Amino acid sequence: MINVSIVGAGQTKFGRHTEYDLRELFALAANDAIAEAGITTKGVQAIFVGNLSADLFNRQCHIAPLVADFAGMKGVAATRCEAACASSATALRAAILALESGLYDVVIAGGVEKMTDLPTAGVVETLAMAADQTFEAGAGLTFPGIFAVMAVAHMQKFGTTREQLAAVAVKNHHNAMSNPLAQFQQEITVDKVLSSRMVAWPLGLFDCSPISDGAAAVVLVRTKDARKYTDAPVKIIGSAQASGSMNLCDRENLHTLLAAKQASAEAYKQAKLDAKDIDFAEVHDCFTIAEIIATEDLGFFKPGEGGPAVEQGRTQVGAEKPINTSGGLKAKGHPVGATGVAQVIELYHQLRNEAGKRQVSNADIGLTHNVGGTGATCCIHICKRW
Amino acid sequence: MINVSIVGAGQTKFGRHTEYDLRELFALAANDAIAEAGITTKGVQAIFVGNLSADLFNRQCHIAPLVADFAGMKGVAATRCEAACASSATALRAAILALESGLYDVVIAGGVEKMTDLPTAGVVETLAMAADQTFEAGAGLTFPGIFAVMAVAHMQKFGTTREQLAAVAVKNHHNAMSNPLAQFQQEITVDKVLSSRMVAWPLGLFDCSPISDGAAAVVLVRTKDARKYTDAPVKIIGSAQASGSMNLCDRENLHTLLAAKQASAEAYKQAKLDAKDIDFAEVHDCFTIAEIIATEDLGFFKPGEGGPAVEQGRTQVGAEKPINTSGGLKAKGHPVGATGVAQVIELYHQLRNEAGKRQVSNADIGLTHNVGGTGATCCIHICKRW
Repeated sequence: MINVSIVGAGQTKFGRHTEYDLRELFALAANDAIAEAGITTKGVQAIFVGNLSADLFNRQCHIAPLVADFAGMKGVAATRCEAACASSATALRAAILALESGLYDVVIAGGVEKMTDLPTAGVVETLAMAADQTFEAGAGLTFPGIFAVMAVAHMQKFGTTREQLAAVAVKNHHNAMSNPLAQFQQEITVDKVLSSRMVAWPLGLFDCSPISDGAAAVVLVRTKDARKYTDAPVKIIGSAQASGSMNLCDRENLHTLLAAKQASAEAYKQAKLDAKDIDFAEVHDCFTIAEIIATEDLGFFKPGEGGPAVEQGRTQVGAEKPINTSGGLKAKGHPVGATGVAQVIELYHQLRNEAGKRQVSNADIGLTHNVGGTGATCCIHICKRW
Repeated sequence: MINVSIVGAGQTKFGRHTEYDLRELFALAANDAIAEAGITTKGVQAIFVGNLSADLFNRQCHIAPLVADFAGMKGVAATRCEAACASSATALRAAILALESGLYDVVIAGGVEKMTDLPTAGVVETLAMAADQTFEAGAGLTFPGIFAVMAVAHMQKFGTTREQLAAVAVKNHHNAMSNPLAQFQQEITVDKVLSSRMVAWPLGLFDCSPISDGAAAVVLVRTKDARKYTDAPVKIIGSAQASGSMNLCDRENLHTLLAAKQASAEAYKQAKLDAKDIDFAEVHDCFTIAEIIATEDLGFFKPGEGGPAVEQGRTQVGAEKPINTSGGLKAKGHPVGATGVAQVIELYHQLRNEAGKRQVSNADIGLTHNVGGTGATCCIHICKRW
């Protein structure tokens, strides 16, 4: 049983930020979250910051005390958590454990990444290091290549089509149109996705999430204290994390992520509910195929039904299981270290009826699915309306 | 109040390992710790791994699930914690919070670094990224340079001498002679330190800790369960973490680390004791001046007395306050991500009377002081004999 609530949230716009550096991006998000929680920086006792690799993107290690200080929280316990693209979900989970321990009362979980300081080739090379350097990245396999392999496996096993993959991108771009913090504000069509420049067959440019800068942060307290801070806290009722093999060659199959299945089973158990009880979800659509696999791993659809489901519109806002109402990684953007917390922030806004045109009606329970690397880490969080 | 105990520990020899890579080093340490705890890998529910920058040292991000899998623990929640040279102390602390939360019962905290894959200049450049890239490293200030500035400030304020700095190195090399896992097994003299190649005045080569490979891991459980695993667990009765400014120019002075003072005050309070109650300590002697500053920040000696104290032999094994009985970072070696947990392992062996010739007699309470960067992070842990 998890007894932690979100009482404030802040997120920068995702995209290319030439005007802010890493510490400034984090401070913008953290200070918004702090203000929304009705506290000051003095009220924060610890921060956990997700970041994939400021080391390689910005030539800066040890970012947690750096961003804490710049955001006005010098002195607090400041820890960076890293699990590739699931970094800030592991930071969120560490923050939850910290609150559950009773040693802290008010904690910030956040994440930040400033990727655009490197040229695209450098970003691709850096991200590849989140796969197995010895068996994959060192042999030339990059992330689009790895997910292309998974896509081919899914197509072969279930008959999934490129049009179904494209439907993920089309939906998520549509959702992003009503998210002012999303990187892309542009409708696209299936034809546009299919005719986009090929990256790694069957994944074209529009099957891939973009390179982004951005930060996200939430203020967390124990649920029993939450109403002291806001009239509309959002409860976290499930938090689970699992790992899997880094390299594809050690896996039982290529069309599912075992860590996602394991973590979601644990989170459902904690929250005492099942896949059918989830009203909407933010899932890790780093590539279009990843969203289809996620909706199957999470039990929303049977294996092989994820592709048809998105093509039939069953995951749109207003349909039976809205997925990535924020625009997802694909269209909201994917500053990798910030993504996990940003997913939870979408739940927070939906569960407070603050999601504007993309609001899911009668949203009561939402889930986030944040994947590190190609599935070696998966974190699941489940949130509930107060 | 902290209620966590160590029930198993494992550490590789520190030094240059050409025969093992990162994952192999960690597996050696973790599997020794697991065996000592009398469990199997199946009994471990989560691991927290400290690592400064496999990104830059080994072109590998996302190391936690990688090392977990290779050590036989695929599936467990696996999180990397990074706070520069205090990375594994923050991993230890995250593991303690995880146990205190009640969500896990058996957790591994460890750390690993494989630094010698890079040439020395690359290591120095990488470590410099743990200082402020914008205001320090980017301007050419490296770690020896930063600690040299602190040493000069300490000399100016208190009259600390180069001979006193050298006494730290001489003592720690002596202690390492009876630690088979230490990198250096060689007595040195004050003259040898003073005549060693100058790195950044007043710090010569023998004032600096070496470049090292190595790993360390401990198995942790709640104290009430500890006797199920071993007849001689070691209790952790204090765990505190604080942050300070990354760059020197934002500090009140250069001869003390505020984060160390803050974290030690908090840890003493948790453990309901004071500096005088600490029988021995492992402190962060990345440079000789750092040990002197540490013994003052921790309250073992008054400001300015740290230099005379070491010169007078007051910190030797057998004297009033043995410091760095393991050989310290200076002579045991400093594979940065492994150091924090390795410090605690020295406490574990001392408190179980397993320290051989370097055994502190009647050791009842020990303390570790692990610093990240130039003091932007400090973690303190206090351990007690069962």
